[in-house]
Amino acid sequence: MQLLLSWRRNPPGQILSWTLRGCSQVMFQNNPTCGLLFFIAIFLAAFQAGMPQIAWGCLLATVIATITAALQATDRAGLAQGLYGYNACLLGVALPTFLAPGPLMWCSIVFWSLLSPGITVALNRWLAPGPLPALTAPFVLASWVTLLGSYHFNALPPAHLPPPELPLARVFTDIPSLPGDLLREFLSGVSQVFLADNALSGTLILLGLAISSPRAMGYALLGAALALSIAWGLQAEPASLREGLYAFSAVLTAVALGSAFPVPGKSALPRCLAGILSTVLVQGAFNTLLAPFGIPSLTMPFVSVTWCYLLSAPGSEPTKERDCV
Amino acid sequence: MQLLLSWRRNPPGQILSWTLRGCSQVMFQNNPTCGLLFFIAIFLAAFQAGMPQIAWGCLLATVIATITAALQATDRAGLAQGLYGYNACLLGVALPTFLAPGPLMWCSIVFWSLLSPGITVALNRWLAPGPLPALTAPFVLASWVTLLGSYHFNALPPAHLPPPELPLARVFTDIPSLPGDLLREFLSGVSQVFLADNALSGTLILLGLAISSPRAMGYALLGAALALSIAWGLQAEPASLREGLYAFSAVLTAVALGSAFPVPGKSALPRCLAGILSTVLVQGAFNTLLAPFGIPSLTMPFVSVTWCYLLSAPGSEPTKERDCV
Amino acid sequence: MQLLLSWRRNPPGQILSWTLRGCSQVMFQNNPTCGLLFFIAIFLAAFQAGMPQIAWGCLLATVIATITAALQATDRAGLAQGLYGYNACLLGVALPTFLAPGPLMWCSIVFWSLLSPGITVALNRWLAPGPLPALTAPFVLASWVTLLGSYHFNALPPAHLPPPELPLARVFTDIPSLPGDLLREFLSGVSQVFLADNALSGTLILLGLAISSPRAMGYALLGAALALSIAWGLQAEPASLREGLYAFSAVLTAVALGSAFPVPGKSALPRCLAGILSTVLVQGAFNTLLAPFGIPSLTMPFVSVTWCYLLSAPGSEPTKERDCV
Repeated sequence: MQLLLSWRRNPPGQILSWTLRGCSQVMFQNNPTCGLLFFIAIFLAAFQAGMPQIAWGCLLATVIATITAALQATDRAGLAQGLYGYNACLLGVALPTFLAPGPLMWCSIVFWSLLSPGITVALNRWLAPGPLPALTAPFVLASWVTLLGSYHFNALPPAHLPPPELPLARVFTDIPSLPGDLLREFLSGVSQVFLADNALSGTLILLGLAISSPRAMGYALLGAALALSIAWGLQAEPASLREGLYAFSAVLTAVALGSAFPVPGKSALPRCLAGILSTVLVQGAFNTLLAPFGIPSLTMPFVSVTWCYLLSAPGSEPTKERDCV
Repeated sequence: MQLLLSWRRNPPGQILSWTLRGCSQVMFQNNPTCGLLFFIAIFLAAFQAGMPQIAWGCLLATVIATITAALQATDRAGLAQGLYGYNACLLGVALPTFLAPGPLMWCSIVFWSLLSPGITVALNRWLAPGPLPALTAPFVLASWVTLLGSYHFNALPPAHLPPPELPLARVFTDIPSLPGDLLREFLSGVSQVFLADNALSGTLILLGLAISSPRAMGYALLGAALALSIAWGLQAEPASLREGLYAFSAVLTAVALGSAFPVPGKSALPRCLAGILSTVLVQGAFNTLLAPFGIPSLTMPFVSVTWCYLLSAPGSEPTKERDCV
Repeated sequence: MQLLLSWRRNPPGQILSWTLRGCSQVMFQNNPTCGLLFFIAIFLAAFQAGMPQIAWGCLLATVIATITAALQATDRAGLAQGLYGYNACLLGVALPTFLAPGPLMWCSIVFWSLLSPGITVALNRWLAPGPLPALTAPFVLASWVTLLGSYHFNALPPAHLPPPELPLARVFTDIPSLPGDLLREFLSGVSQVFLADNALSGTLILLGLAISSPRAMGYALLGAALALSIAWGLQAEPASLREGLYAFSAVLTAVALGSAFPVPGKSALPRCLAGILSTVLVQGAFNTLLAPFGIPSLTMPFVSVTWCYLLSAPGSEPTKERDCV
C-alpha cells in the first residue's frame, strides 16, 4: 500500500529506484547504488568497445520492463526489489552485442522487455511449487529465440554470432597468457556477467557488490578465481579463457549458492566449490551443444547448475520473495 | 452413463461422431460438421497433390485413436469432445507427408494411433497440476521420433524431409510475391495447419470454423494475416512465406489465446497480438534449431508460445475438460 | 535405526553389501549376489577388451557414491537398497569407455560419484510429486555433460566418441549377420546395458538376474529378443545391430515395465511389448538427434519411454522406496 502511495507521489523517482535495483538483481542484490555502479560499468565497456547501442539497449530494456511490471501491478514486493528488471537488463545487453543494429533490433528489445515480466511470472509458475526461482532463464530463453531466429530473418541479421559448426576435439596450441595478464582475465571474467570483456568494468562491478554485500563480493571473487584455475587445469581454449568466458557463469553460481540462497545452518563453502567446478564442466558441455546452432550459452550453465544444487539441498527453500503471483 | 448407453446402442454412429469431433479439435472445436469440412479439406489437398496416402492416413489414424480411447474408457467426457482424436489426426497427415509410403509407414501410423490416447494422458498428467493442456505436443513428439528415426531405418525411409544442414544466415534474393498472390498465401497459411499448401483447402477450413465458432474463425483470419505481415516485415525466406509456413502456428496460437482459452474478464486481443508476434519469432528460432536434424518444426512453435502465455496469465485456468484422468 | 547400528558395527561389510546392491540396481534388483555377478561380467568384458580402466572405474564410482550417500545419511532405506549406487556404477563404466585415460578422467569419475547421490535426490525431487523415479537419468546427464565438455578440454580428451556429423539417410549394404550369430548378438544386447559387447558377460548378467528374480530375467530375454527382431525388421544399421546397440535400452524398458513397475491388477505383457517397440523407435530418433554432438544416447531411450509409460498408466505409482528426500 505504502509502495502504491509512493509510486503515485513520485513516479519518476520510483521507476529510477526500481530500475537501478533491477540492474543490481543481475547479481542478486537489491541496492540502487550497486545498480548504478553496474550501469556505469556497462556504459564504460560499451563505449570503450565502440558499441554504444549495448549501453542504451540495456538501459531502455530495464526501464521498459520495470514500467511494464509497475503497470501490471501483480507483484508489488517483487517489483520493488527489482525482480522484474534484471532479465530485461541482460537481454538489452545481449541483443545489441550479437545482432546488427537496426530498427528491428530495437523493436525486438522493446518487445521482449514488454513481455519480460510475463515470461518471468510464467517460468516461476512453471517451476512452482518446487523451491526453484526463475533466475536468468527468461533472459536466456528470449535471447536464444531472437538469436536463433536471426539466421532466418534478413531484417534482423546476426553480426557477432559464432558461425554454426560441428564440434571438433581440437588441440589448442595458442600461447597461454602470461601471469601478468591473470588479473586482467580475472576481472574480465567478472565483467562477462554483463557480456563485456573489460577489466575496469569488472572492477566497478566488484565495487558495486562490495557496497551492497561484502559477502557476495567475496563469493564473486572466489567464483572468478576458481573457475579460471579449473578451466586452465582442464586446458580449455586459451582465447575463451582470456575473454573470461569460463568465469562469468561460475561467478553467478558462486554468489547464488554462497550468498543468495544459503542452506540454513550449513556452511555454504563446500557446495559453492562443487558448484563452481560443475559450472565450468557444464559450460564446456554447452559450448559443444550449442556449436551447431551458432548461439552462445549466455548464463544457462549457471542457471542449470544452480537449479540442480537448489533441488538437491534439503531445506534450502529460497527466499519466497523471488516467487511471484 | 448416457454416453455409455448411446455407445452401446449405436457404436458406428458414435465412433463417426467422435472421429469428426476429433478432427475439429485440431482447431479447438467440438463440432462434427466442422470436422467433416476439415476432412474434406484434407482429402482435397491430398488428392490434388497426388498423395492420397495423406488423406487415408489421417482418416485411419483418427478412427483408430478414437476407438482405442473408447475401449480404454477412462475419460468419457474428453472422448466425446474428440480430445483423443486430434493428435492422431495430425500424425496421420504428417507421416505420409514426410515418409516414403510402404508397409512400415502404415504400421507406424497404426502404432502411434494406438498409443496416442495414452501419450495424451501421460503428457496431461506431466503438465498437471498446472493450468496447461497437452495441446498438439503428443502429435509433435510422436512425429519427431518417427521422422528422426527414419534416418536410421532403411525400411522406413524419409521422402520429403529437409536435408540436415547447419544454419546459415542467408540473404534472400528471390523475387517477392506480387500483391495478387497474397490471398493465396494467406489461405495456404490456414491450410498448413493440416500440412497442406492449398488455398481451396484453406477456404474449407475457414468455412468449417465459421460454422462452429465465428469468433474462432475471426481469430484464425487475424492470425494468418498478421503472421504473414510480420514475417514479410522481418524479411523471412520468400519460399517459406509463399507456402504459408510462417502462418499456420500463428493461426493456432491466435485461436487458442483468442477463443479457446480466454482470460475471464479481460480482452483477449492484446495477448493474442503479442502471441502471434511471439509465434513468428519462435518459428524462426525452431527453423534454425531443427536444421541440423532435418525435421520440420510442425506445430511446436504454437505449443511452446501458448504454454508460455497460459502460464503467465493469472486466472486463465483453461477448461478442465482438456485435463483428463 | 537398526541399519545405523549395523553400519556402526561393521562399516566395511555394510559398504560392500550396499555397493553390490547398487550394481544390481542397474537392472532394478536389490540382491548382492546378483550385483557380484554383474561386477564379474563388467570386469570380464573390460579385461577382454584390453580396457581394465572400465572395470576399476565402475568399482571405484560405485563405492564412492555408496560411501557418500552413507555419510549424508538422509535416505537410509534407499541407501540400503543400493539406490544411490547404480547411477555412479554406470558412470564409472561410461567415462573410461569413451574418454582417454588420464588423471582428469579419474578426477571426473570421483567428482561425479561424489555428486551422484545429490543429483539423484535433485532429480527425484524435480519429478515429484508425480509417479516418476529418476531411473538412470542422473547417470545419463552427468555422462553427457562430461562427454560434451571433453570436446573443449584438452586435458580430458575424447577417445572413442562417434565423430560429430550431420544425420544422413544411408542405405545400409553391409552383409547381414548369419543366423548362427544371432545368439551372440542377443547376449551382446544384454551386456550393452553395461556398455560392453561381450556374449559371456551377457550370460553372466542373465544369470545374476535369474538368481535375483526369474521374472526379471524373463522380461530381459523378451526385451533383447524382441528389440533385435524389430530393429532387423526396420532394417537398422547392421553394425549397430551386431553390437547390441538396439537392444540394451529395450532390455531395461522390458524389465522396468514388466517386473519393476507393474500396474496392479493388470497384465504387464501388452505394455511391455509396446514399450519395447517404442524404445527401438526412440533409440533410432536419439541416434539422429545426437549425431551432430558426437555423443552416444546411453540409456536415455529407456528413461524417456519408461517415464512416458509410467505417466500414462493410472495407478502405477511405483514403489515409493525409489523416492527419496
